[in-house]
Order: sequence, then structure tokens, then C-alpha cells
Amino acid sequence: MGSYKTLKEEAWEANLEIPRRNLAIYTWGNVSALDRQKGVFAIKPSGVAYTALTPESMVVVDMEGTVVDGSLRPSSDMETHRILYRDFSSACGITHTHSAYAVAWAQARRAVPVFGTTHADHGAERIPCTAVMDEAAVRNNYERETGNLIVQTFRDQKKDSALMPMVLVAGHGPFTWGETASQSVYHAAALEEICKMALLTLQVNPHAEPLPEHLIIKHWERKHGINAYYGQKKNES
Amino acid sequence: MGSYKTLKEEAWEANLEIPRRNLAIYTWGNVSALDRQKGVFAIKPSGVAYTALTPESMVVVDMEGTVVDGSLRPSSDMETHRILYRDFSSACGITHTHSAYAVAWAQARRAVPVFGTTHADHGAERIPCTAVMDEAAVRNNYERETGNLIVQTFRDQKKDSALMPMVLVAGHGPFTWGETASQSVYHAAALEEICKMALLTLQVNPHAEPLPEHLIIKHWERKHGINAYYGQKKNES
Amino acid sequence: MGSYKTLKEEAWEANLEIPRRNLAIYTWGNVSALDRQKGVFAIKPSGVAYTALTPESMVVVDMEGTVVDGSLRPSSDMETHRILYRDFSSACGITHTHSAYAVAWAQARRAVPVFGTTHADHGAERIPCTAVMDEAAVRNNYERETGNLIVQTFRDQKKDSALMPMVLVAGHGPFTWGETASQSVYHAAALEEICKMALLTLQVNPHAEPLPEHLIIKHWERKHGINAYYGQKKNES
Amino acid sequence: MGSYKTLKEEAWEANLEIPRRNLAIYTWGNVSALDRQKGVFAIKPSGVAYTALTPESMVVVDMEGTVVDGSLRPSSDMETHRILYRDFSSACGITHTHSAYAVAWAQARRAVPVFGTTHADHGAERIPCTAVMDEAAVRNNYERETGNLIVQTFRDQKKDSALMPMVLVAGHGPFTWGETASQSVYHAAALEEICKMALLTLQVNPHAEPLPEHLIIKHWERKHGINAYYGQKKNES
Repeated sequence: MGSYKTLKEEAWEANLEIPRRNLAIYTWGNVSALDRQKGVFAIKPSGVAYTALTPESMVVVDMEGTVVDGSLRPSSDMETHRILYRDFSSACGITHTHSAYAVAWAQARRAVPVFGTTHADHGAERIPCTAVMDEAAVRNNYERETGNLIVQTFRDQKKDSALMPMVLVAGHGPFTWGETASQSVYHAAALEEICKMALLTLQVNPHAEPLPEHLIIKHWERKHGINAYYGQKKNES
Repeated sequence: MGSYKTLKEEAWEANLEIPRRNLAIYTWGNVSALDRQKGVFAIKPSGVAYTALTPESMVVVDMEGTVVDGSLRPSSDMETHRILYRDFSSACGITHTHSAYAVAWAQARRAVPVFGTTHADHGAERIPCTAVMDEAAVRNNYERETGNLIVQTFRDQKKDSALMPMVLVAGHGPFTWGETASQSVYHAAALEEICKMALLTLQVNPHAEPLPEHLIIKHWERKHGINAYYGQKKNES
Repeated sequence: MGSYKTLKEEAWEANLEIPRRNLAIYTWGNVSALDRQKGVFAIKPSGVAYTALTPESMVVVDMEGTVVDGSLRPSSDMETHRILYRDFSSACGITHTHSAYAVAWAQARRAVPVFGTTHADHGAERIPCTAVMDEAAVRNNYERETGNLIVQTFRDQKKDSALMPMVLVAGHGPFTWGETASQSVYHAAALEEICKMALLTLQVNPHAEPLPEHLIIKHWERKHGINAYYGQKKNES
Repeated sequence: MGSYKTLKEEAWEANLEIPRRNLAIYTWGNVSALDRQKGVFAIKPSGVAYTALTPESMVVVDMEGTVVDGSLRPSSDMETHRILYRDFSSACGITHTHSAYAVAWAQARRAVPVFGTTHADHGAERIPCTAVMDEAAVRNNYERETGNLIVQTFRDQKKDSALMPMVLVAGHGPFTWGETASQSVYHAAALEEICKMALLTLQVNPHAEPLPEHLIIKHWERKHGINAYYGQKKNES
């Protein structure tokens, strides 16, 4: 696997988390891992079952979308990953799944309100949902335009991809990212739980109100702020 | 097992996918595999637990419904499979389950709207639901008439069974088909996910709108059209 | 274990099916097996985890409720089992669980309509729900009165326990029975699926209508009628 | 591990029950075990995966919140545990999770009505939900104030923590306690089931009524009253 061995192993391991975490059946999800220095990312091959994946089967693509290593076709969502890596500069891992609750909010075309601390632990604002892609964009280059649509949504809503690592593509499903491929899958699993809890909350109380701002900020900052105190100090555990 | 060895093994393996994919408990589902050249299909024996199945226990039936191999009774749904094979000329595998969400839509007697790309990846239109069978048909030959009802529904709604591999029988549950027995089980699992997502979507937003036509067509064609680019090229992976 | 060895083994094996089929967590369910000739039944000991059960730990009780074998206390629901065995003459196995969907219908105090064939395969009418037990009965002998309440519900509604092997006790949960302990657990699992499907059906369509009578009868009779043709002939498989 | 070996093992084993019982994904839950004589409790380290836990990794804290044993940071919820141990004098184990149905009721800010015997077996009244914490309390010491909020809720509602071992913190999730760490996890699992059943009950019947008082008392007392008869006599099984 030459110089991409570590990157391909990282992508392979992260892809195996998808079925383990019940985030997609069959081949309905994909993860990629980016090496920003080399300017390449390793991504799942298209349509191959998770049980059949090996590190060698990962496909390495450069930032122009050209395959530079691997004998299989990359995931059909490769262009979406590429655009997100280009515009979301802190992302070094991306996950796309068809997990049921996240898809439900995406199909309902609704941003997910911050109903509780589980959500605030992962993002201090609503999880955005894009608009439905128009016909011209679909005809142009569908997967690239999916990336552009996400980027545009973040620009329009003045969201920072380093602080909000999740999005719902209307009528389609979730994309999540992180500092590593593994963290992007973690965000996909967290998003699915958040979406499930949000729907159940509305079922218990259709007039449920979002968490007040002071609690949202508190939970976000105890995990992510400059004085974060959740977890162990780096280099420690 | 003589000349039906491969066919019986194919049917047996596909039946084992039903409990693995949580598509039915106990004996509440069955799969068959058709050999169009020989004009016979192998089907699960009636009322036998999946864990007790062997390739030898599969029952081989010809296109007139006569058992030509095997010592057990075929699935009570055998006649439904036979009619579908006769009229749906591209089907070489059929699956029937009682998976909960597909049954819920069948019991609610509602076609499933195309709310998202997960659905469009598997069919470019609503998943049809038959009418409730009338008393005369039930008295005639219930299982054969179930097949006729499905075929008539496709004719009336001008649907092509090669493009829409799924149906809900009102008050009963799903039947799915494919080019192989294995693919028919895949369609049963996909249908269950689609039905679950559709209900959750309506729960998030009771006024959810179907996906626009340009996105439905795009997703269908990237998997099934003449220029399909999802998955690997045949003979490649 | 003397003369009750087989009966205790039957009860033990059937109790182990409860966690396997996800019908109760911890100790929230119990099964008994009756030997009508000997006039005794073996039942789960009270409050013992399924993983700690052995055939020897089963408690054997006679038809007056006296423990005749075993060193542990029988399930606190023993008296309910005893009354049901006394009045439901074809039952030789009884199961009580706290499975979530069956409990939900019991807590909602609603009989389960026959929305589809999955239900009709197991009973040709609504699954009855008792009234809420009054204070005098609770003070008398709660568990015995639970049995009496079920028996009275069947009398009042002119239901035959040989044809309807399931009941919901209002505000509590399900009891099911069968010709064997194993079959009573099967009915508990079938009831849970039926209750889940019925709720999902109402969620897809709040105005869902019950299955017409001709389809109910057809499904019931193909499994249970004098000309039943589902499954294998006895002595055959 | 010196003199805290048993306590740390008890905490470790109880923490492992969280993923086994599906009460939290990743690191989203924690359990502690208290030794009242020594005045210390062992708690999960912050942000460490369950699969990476060992008895040695547990952190021992005294009743002033000072770490007295262990090299890792304690759970960020440690202060909440400490306050509850201080005020709830019968508790020797505490569990916090983010299980989905309990979180849904907490996010909906609703106490859980006693719809059935499954609930009454574990508490003879509604499961309380706190108010949403105000901004001053959050700024002071968030986790300590979470404990104070729970304690204040029990005082205001005149609830006895020895009789009601569960609470929902509004907008956050559940805390449960018990005579041992293991029992506190049991209560977390029971709470999740009760919350799931309560929501499903309202879905079957939005006008569902609570269980009458005589049945609530009966179920509570057969498990917890002076004449309790559920389970085996102590020293017996």
C-alpha cells in the first residue's frame, strides 16, 4: 500500500464502525480519512460490503478528485467529501450514513432544535438542514453540488464547521466530520442519538421548548471551551 | 439433491438471511429461488424454523405448482410465488416477510411516498399497496389470488416489476423480488428501512413533502440507469 | 428431581426463551408447565435471574397451590397461573411478561383490533383487555383475583381460551398460554409483535380499519381449522 | 489498589453494566459506589471508554470531593454524585446515563405518570422531573448545583429518596440510586423501560389514565413493604 498505508488503515477501521454502531445496513454509508499534508484522502470503495473491506481496498483520491491509489471505484459520494475537505479546513475525517432517525429529520427537512444537554455536548446550536437541491444543480454534478449545498448552508447560516460537525442534507441524510475519521463516525452516532431523542421529546411533549442558552453554552464549553474539563488531559489517558 | 443442488442451496442461504436481518421471527417469512431454464423454483418448507433448515429440506416446485423434489410441504405462500414468477418475467427470487414497519404500512393500506433518496435508490415511485382482497377471491384460492392481486395492482397502476421490486399486500405484509433470491431479501430489508424512515419522517413533520422528481430520477439512475455509476463495474469487484 | 424431572426441564427451557426473545429484562417474566395427569405445574422461582436458573430450581406446585417439590418460593404470580390452568382446560403452559408494546396496550386499557393477518394467524378476534381490578379484589388475594379477572373477562366476552390464547390485564401486562410451555412463550412473542404492529399501523393511519371478517377467518383457519394446511403434517417434520 | 480494592471493583463492574444494558453509547454514563464507613466513593474516570476500564482506573473521592486514590480525573458528574450521597442517606450507589426514553421525558420536562404495575414495582408515585437550572446556578458550580437541584426537588415535592430511587433532570437526563452500585444501574434500566412504556401508552391512548392508588400501593408493597413477598427470603437464594 506504499505511502498511504496508515491513511488506508484509518479509513478502513472507521468504515467498520458503521455497521458496529448500526448506522447503515449493507453498503449505505461511507467514511474517508484525509492527510492534509499529502493532500489526499482514503475512502470506501463504492458498493462493497463492510465485511468484504480490507485496508488495501480503500481508494486514495487527491484534492482534484483523481484516484492516486487503489484499483476500485471510490464511493459515489467521493465528490461531496472532497468539497467538504476543501472548505471545512479543520475536518480530516468525513462520514455519510443513512441512519434512520437522522434520515427522518432530513426527509422532514427540519433543523434539529437543541432540546437537551446530549445535543449541546456536540454543538451549541440547531443542527442545520440544507434546502432541497434544485434541478440545475442536480444535472450539473450531483455529488459535488451536494458538497456545495452544505458549504453554502453553513455560509448562509453563519455556522462554523469547526464548532458544528454535522449537517442534514434535505431529502437525503446526514454528513458528519471531525479531526479524524474515527471522530467523524463518533459524530454520526451522536447525531443519530440526538435525532432519536429529539423526536421522542416531541412525542412526549409536542410543545417542548429548547434548552435555555446558558445551559447550551455551559455544556458546550465543558467539553470544547478553552477551560474544558470533560475527559482526561491530553497526553494523560 | 440431484440436479437441483445449486438452486436449493441458493434458496436455503437466502432464507437464513431473514432472521439475520431481523425481517421475521419464528417461521414468519420465506424465500424462493427460480431457475427459469428448468422452469422450477426452490422454496422454504412450511412452518419449519430457520435454524432447522438445510439445503436438502428446500422444496422444489414446477411452474404448475407441482412438487418435483423434496419430502416436505412447501411454504403455504408457494402459489403466490408461482404467480409472481409467471407474470414478473425478470424475477428469479422472491421474499415474503412480516417485518414490522412494512406490515404497518400494509395494515394501514397506504402506499409509501418517496420521502428521500434511500427510497429513490430502490424505486423511482411510491411503493404500491394492493386493495384488500374480496371474499370471492379469498374463497377461490387465497394464495394464488394474492399473486393475482399483486399482478393486477401493477397492471392497474402501470408499474413495471423490473423497476419496482416491492409491494405491500393490504392487511397482510410485503412481497419483494429480484434477479436472485439474495437480491429479493436485500429488497425486503431495504423496504423495511424505507417504511421505518417514512413513518419517522411523518412523525417529525406530518406535512412532509415527497422528494421532487428531479432528485428521485437522479438517485434511481445513478444506481440503475444506463449510465449507472454506483458500485463496481461488473467483472471487476 | 424425581418424578418431575421432565416437567421442570420443560419449564426451565421455556423460561430461558423470555430473555432470548427480549420479552422481559431482569426477572420481569415467568413461565410454567403443567402436567394435567399428575395435577402439578412447574414454575419459575420468584426474583431469580434467568441466567441463574437451573431445571432443579423450578418450583412444582399442585392444583391447590401447595409446593410439592423445590426449595425456593414460586413466582409471586403462581396463583394467577393456577387459576388459569383450572379454568382454561386446554392450557398446559402459561407465560407472563412485561414486554413493552403489550404492556403499552394494557396500560392504555385497550383491546387490540385485528389490523392484519399476523394477528389473525393467532386469534380470529380482538385481543381482550380486562377491566382494572377493584380495591376489594386487590385486598382479597391479588394474584388469585388476577386469574379470576381474566377468566371472568373471557366469560363476559364469550371468548374461548382454546381459540384466543392471549389477554392483556389492564394496567399490568400480558398473559399468554398454549398446549405446552414453549407454545405459551411463542404466543407471548407473537403478541408483542402484534401489539407493536398495531400501534405502528395507527401511527401510519389513525383511521386504519380492521381486516374484514372473511380474511380474518381465512388466516385463522389455514393455521388452526379442521382443514389447516400451514406447516407440516404431524408425525412428518 | 490498597484498601479500596473491593469498592473499585464494585464500581467497575457496575459501569460495565451500562453498555450491556444499552443505557449509553461511548462514554455517556457513569456509576459510582460508596463506602459510607470510610466516607469515600469510587467513580468512573471521565471520558474513558467502557471497554478500556479496569478496576484500577476507578477514581476514589472523599465526601469533600478530593481525589484520594487513582491517577485519572473523575467523571465530570462527580460533584452531583457527592451531593446526592450527602443528602440521600440510604444511597450507596448512583448511576447517570443518557438512555433515550428517559432523556426524552427529561427534555420534555415532564414527570412520568404511574401508568402501570411496572412503574409501581419501582416507585409508588410519579417519577419527578426537576425545574430547568437557572443561569446563576449554572455559573456557580454546575455539577454541584445539579445535585442541589435534585435534592431541592425531593424536598419541595416531599419525596423520600429511599422510596423513589429515580429522578429526571430537566433538559438533561436521568440519575438513579440504590443500596449498591449494581442496584442503581438496575434502577436506571428499569427507568428506561418505564419511560418507554409510558410514551407508548400515550401513543396507544392519549387519554390514558394513571393506575388507581390501590393497585399502585399493592405492587409497591408486595416488593418493598414490611410484608413483601416478591423474590426469595434473604439468606435463602
